[in-house]
Amino acid sequence: MSENINREIYTELANRIYDLDAEVYRVLGSSLGRTFTGNRDTTIRTLSMLMYTKPDGHLLRSELALISNMARTIKDPAEKSRLMTEYDEILKAIEQLPNMFGSTDILDAERAALNLAVRREKISENDHLVICISRTQGSAGNDIGFELADKLRINYYDVEIFNQVMKRLEAEKDNVQDKENFTDFNKYGKKTHESLKTKLKELNRYHGLSKQDAVFFNMSDLICELARTEDCLIMGRCADAILKNNHIPHISIFISAPFQVRTQHVMDVRNMDMKQAVRFLKKMDKQHKKYYEFYTGEKWGKPENYDLCINSANYGIKETIDVIKRLLNQQTQ
Amino acid sequence: MSENINREIYTELANRIYDLDAEVYRVLGSSLGRTFTGNRDTTIRTLSMLMYTKPDGHLLRSELALISNMARTIKDPAEKSRLMTEYDEILKAIEQLPNMFGSTDILDAERAALNLAVRREKISENDHLVICISRTQGSAGNDIGFELADKLRINYYDVEIFNQVMKRLEAEKDNVQDKENFTDFNKYGKKTHESLKTKLKELNRYHGLSKQDAVFFNMSDLICELARTEDCLIMGRCADAILKNNHIPHISIFISAPFQVRTQHVMDVRNMDMKQAVRFLKKMDKQHKKYYEFYTGEKWGKPENYDLCINSANYGIKETIDVIKRLLNQQTQ
Repeated sequence: MSENINREIYTELANRIYDLDAEVYRVLGSSLGRTFTGNRDTTIRTLSMLMYTKPDGHLLRSELALISNMARTIKDPAEKSRLMTEYDEILKAIEQLPNMFGSTDILDAERAALNLAVRREKISENDHLVICISRTQGSAGNDIGFELADKLRINYYDVEIFNQVMKRLEAEKDNVQDKENFTDFNKYGKKTHESLKTKLKELNRYHGLSKQDAVFFNMSDLICELARTEDCLIMGRCADAILKNNHIPHISIFISAPFQVRTQHVMDVRNMDMKQAVRFLKKMDKQHKKYYEFYTGEKWGKPENYDLCINSANYGIKETIDVIKRLLNQQTQ
Repeated sequence: MSENINREIYTELANRIYDLDAEVYRVLGSSLGRTFTGNRDTTIRTLSMLMYTKPDGHLLRSELALISNMARTIKDPAEKSRLMTEYDEILKAIEQLPNMFGSTDILDAERAALNLAVRREKISENDHLVICISRTQGSAGNDIGFELADKLRINYYDVEIFNQVMKRLEAEKDNVQDKENFTDFNKYGKKTHESLKTKLKELNRYHGLSKQDAVFFNMSDLICELARTEDCLIMGRCADAILKNNHIPHISIFISAPFQVRTQHVMDVRNMDMKQAVRFLKKMDKQHKKYYEFYTGEKWGKPENYDLCINSANYGIKETIDVIKRLLNQQTQ
């Protein structure tokens, strides 16, 4: 019964599409000819069939687009408006059909529910604006993150800050007056080799975890804590994966640029020659990759692991920040 | 001489940073303590050094961010405003220093000049809004592209449309009245095996190129022609690489989604079971990859080959369209 009704609708729509095509051709007289050059009956049958066979939905769409592409070239405003209105109505009617193209959404419902970029008002008032930025070395990702956080007036966290905060929390927990100067710049120097004794001491201290793993898990806790209590921007640290696993709303962005552009950037910023810059980038990419894959089990830098990836070389620092602000629905300043 | 002046500025700024940290700590009394716990002289010397040594610019930035992160937690609005103002002024002064962090842009100047998403008014009035969308199968990329083009009222081109247009141009060129029904739906069926004779005939016809290559080059011409003369959205066909090589302004977007989400989408849309869907996706991904890499020499789906990559599973169809419209500075409807 309902199938019969649908068939009638299909036939009616097919007729309207056929007539629209004929009309567009009559008005335009394009040398390319009509979209449908077969006779009415055959074309109606084929169009109805296309509407009925879901898998080929995109073919019907292509036929429609071809007609509308031509209709849009009509010079006479009245004729154009008349035919585009008919086109819009046909399209709307087709979209109402069951199982028609575009009617099946693509959605990772769980992740989309946590995606702050979708629309802020959808997510509870208690949630904070948390932006996770992963980046490749030399893509100016840190410059972009820092400036973006500053423009948005939210807290900025990178690896150095995490290390400092972690140290302090550690010192606090041990209830030891930390006499260490936190701006002890030796921390930026080379690490001296750890003795076996130190390693054993740490293993004991971190409940059987290696120090590296213990640091990662402590940092994970810290990142979740931050994201639950304040607006912030977090650079790297697999923060996106950590927050996703803990069901905490956030936005995840990956910033990269072509290798040769990054090489030039590193040469400029770090006063390196090309050979040094290439070696440095390859080493850093390898480290990033290893860290990310070890702690997330996902491939590093694959577009589908983030909400959005931006090629900073195609925008520059200021425009990349602007793109992200536009994504967040923030007005351009 | 100018180096001496810079040193004075460094020392002055270092003093202001040290004082700001002390002030923030005085007002907040955080249990985490001050950022700088060393004595004034040592800290000033180290901070000046950080400002002087370009490669460590990001460390200075981390120290500053740590102070401002704390300052932002001050409850008293007057105190907060006073200290944040001082912070902003220090930051501005630092950004004025030669070679300071964020001062070296990352930019592929040639590509950025052709990037329509940067800002439309920057590019000449003769340019058109050309959006190139690459997508993985099952990411709803076609749905997104078609609806976006419709919303923007620009022409939509996909592989089916290109094939039809190419056929017509071919027929026109040959000065043959094309008696073929362009909506000959056999074209959607399986291709019959070509005979050697047909192949040789084609090789001759396409000036020694294989038919596939000839089609690609003709299509490249068509894509350039379209992008030069109208606003349009082009699905696939390596259009981004073709336009880039021909220095034609455009926006390049890659749409993808995680494999398991795409599998579910294909199962829903094409009435396949999981095994069929996985096999289908793997085959299509392989074909896409091969086509793209053959004609561009670039790796398919790497974020740095596009202006922007969007994970459609984290937004859904409507929101992905909205994100792209926001990127284009178009208001949300």
